[in-house]
Amino acid sequence: MSKEPIPICLVHGGAGDIPASRVQAKLNGVKQAAQIGYHHLINNGSALEAVELAVIHMELDPVFNAGYGSVLTTEGTVEMEASVMDGKTLKVGCVTGVVDIMHPISAAIRVMEKTPHNFLGFHGANRFIKQQEFELLKPGALITDQAKEALEHWKEQQKNGGFKGFAKTEIGHNQHERGETIGAVAIDILGNIAVATSTGGITGKLPGRIGDTPLLGCGTYCDNRFGGVSTTGHGETIMKSCLAHDIIKRIDYLGEDAQTATETACNNMTERFFGKGGAITIDKDGNVGISFTSKRMAWAYQKLNTMHYGIEKDDHFEQIVDQNEVDSLVNVAGKSS
Amino acid sequence: MSKEPIPICLVHGGAGDIPASRVQAKLNGVKQAAQIGYHHLINNGSALEAVELAVIHMELDPVFNAGYGSVLTTEGTVEMEASVMDGKTLKVGCVTGVVDIMHPISAAIRVMEKTPHNFLGFHGANRFIKQQEFELLKPGALITDQAKEALEHWKEQQKNGGFKGFAKTEIGHNQHERGETIGAVAIDILGNIAVATSTGGITGKLPGRIGDTPLLGCGTYCDNRFGGVSTTGHGETIMKSCLAHDIIKRIDYLGEDAQTATETACNNMTERFFGKGGAITIDKDGNVGISFTSKRMAWAYQKLNTMHYGIEKDDHFEQIVDQNEVDSLVNVAGKSS
Repeated sequence: MSKEPIPICLVHGGAGDIPASRVQAKLNGVKQAAQIGYHHLINNGSALEAVELAVIHMELDPVFNAGYGSVLTTEGTVEMEASVMDGKTLKVGCVTGVVDIMHPISAAIRVMEKTPHNFLGFHGANRFIKQQEFELLKPGALITDQAKEALEHWKEQQKNGGFKGFAKTEIGHNQHERGETIGAVAIDILGNIAVATSTGGITGKLPGRIGDTPLLGCGTYCDNRFGGVSTTGHGETIMKSCLAHDIIKRIDYLGEDAQTATETACNNMTERFFGKGGAITIDKDGNVGISFTSKRMAWAYQKLNTMHYGIEKDDHFEQIVDQNEVDSLVNVAGKSS
Repeated sequence: MSKEPIPICLVHGGAGDIPASRVQAKLNGVKQAAQIGYHHLINNGSALEAVELAVIHMELDPVFNAGYGSVLTTEGTVEMEASVMDGKTLKVGCVTGVVDIMHPISAAIRVMEKTPHNFLGFHGANRFIKQQEFELLKPGALITDQAKEALEHWKEQQKNGGFKGFAKTEIGHNQHERGETIGAVAIDILGNIAVATSTGGITGKLPGRIGDTPLLGCGTYCDNRFGGVSTTGHGETIMKSCLAHDIIKRIDYLGEDAQTATETACNNMTERFFGKGGAITIDKDGNVGISFTSKRMAWAYQKLNTMHYGIEKDDHFEQIVDQNEVDSLVNVAGKSS
């Protein structure tokens, strides 16, 4: 790069048919997370630390489907997934089937740092988490009333001719029930890029279901040479299109800019594989790409003293950031992580 | 396509530092699997059926690391993984952490056919397998003496300064211990393409470790518009490069032919991510791509009455196929599947 990059922490709070009643809470959550990440970056923090902090903040917030507030399987249990990739070292960490911890993203980072593998799942992941002395919560501690209601609603739908244990349609779930995965992409003042994505999956998933979020190239991809991507939406569809990797390959092989690559890949995905979703991208020069084919996707990033955010198609609001508010948020995140 | 394609079933028997003592058995195994797949294709069988039959044959053969003969975790257990993608319907099925069945590839196909999801792992996958009434083997039935010896050898290496529970190096395992994943790519007389990949993973893996084989875009990718790919080698490396998807995107975005795309993607992977591996590709017009950066990779395909095969770099042997031998092989596969 010819000049020192301006740091950015770009976050999303999930793509889907987000009801109007939840729009404001989603926007508050993504703006807070983006501020926390940005604050860390301007204090010489690394991109990897910034995306972890941003995701941790959203894992704590029950308005998002990750950590506390994760959606439930057919059996009423929580099975969480997360992935992280460091564009500088090209190291990765992924987990699936994680239970009873607040921050799956931190478990993914620990897999990256402490094992010879990229990806641990279920019994092996949870045993590793115990060995690493993560704080273990009581079973059920992550389950919110809203998650229970969503499962009841989903079960009612199945009785009324929808999904009955096994799929009748390619998609199998309607948009409304899609969980709202969270993710963050950051570029730091050294030009290093990192990506983190975390989810509870999809309401009414079969136990053992693995979605796109923990899969490299699907939910998360990052390489300093090109950029970083975090995705959200219908997991089975995103998996088929390898959405995160597709965006990076459009930048690499087709020379597209971040916005064009993100938009084209999301649109091609929905055209070819029918399901809907979205993605956020930062390229190696700090350019931002944001796109989604779902009804809504909450996103935000801070650049210099301005917060940029939106949730509807074609939204792009700007707001001057109050530095006192940022400081108080950072303290909250510091206490809980 | 302007003309009816000539059907091909292209298979690999794993990339790695295959010892000379196992070369002949590997070659026999891949040639048999390629014949079985081809025989099915010329009898109007589908590409999806052909790759399942070819992989089933290799899952039964203990010279390969899949099904019977799978390598062992640090605890001496077998945890198998497989994936399948149908280039016509774009449906996929993936499993990981599968125990006590002979044919994980058939379980992956069942996930594709019978669930709204793409991917089931561990407890959920094994429960689904029981519900689907797969024949359950006694615990330990898939473990061969050779797999036990490989684990003992691996443990000795750890004592002598190698991997001690957690990685000291980016790679973490030497080439010799890498399991030899199997895979098949087929194009049928209708021009439909399908891919299947199956593995026991890597000797000395932590329980719960998920490799590249069950991951779409890493171990397996297929789309009739472009082609199909199955990969093999160091799973963590293949995952970082999304090798199968990269090859398809080189064909799609760069207009490369199957061989150039396969070779370039494998070479770029090893240059960028250090680990070694290989891939087999069939493009939409039935052109073949075969490449590997490891010492050896057994591969074979039959086209018309000629078997093509190899295992060393630059090998390309040809052999006229004895139809009686094919018939007898097909009977064997028919009995065991």
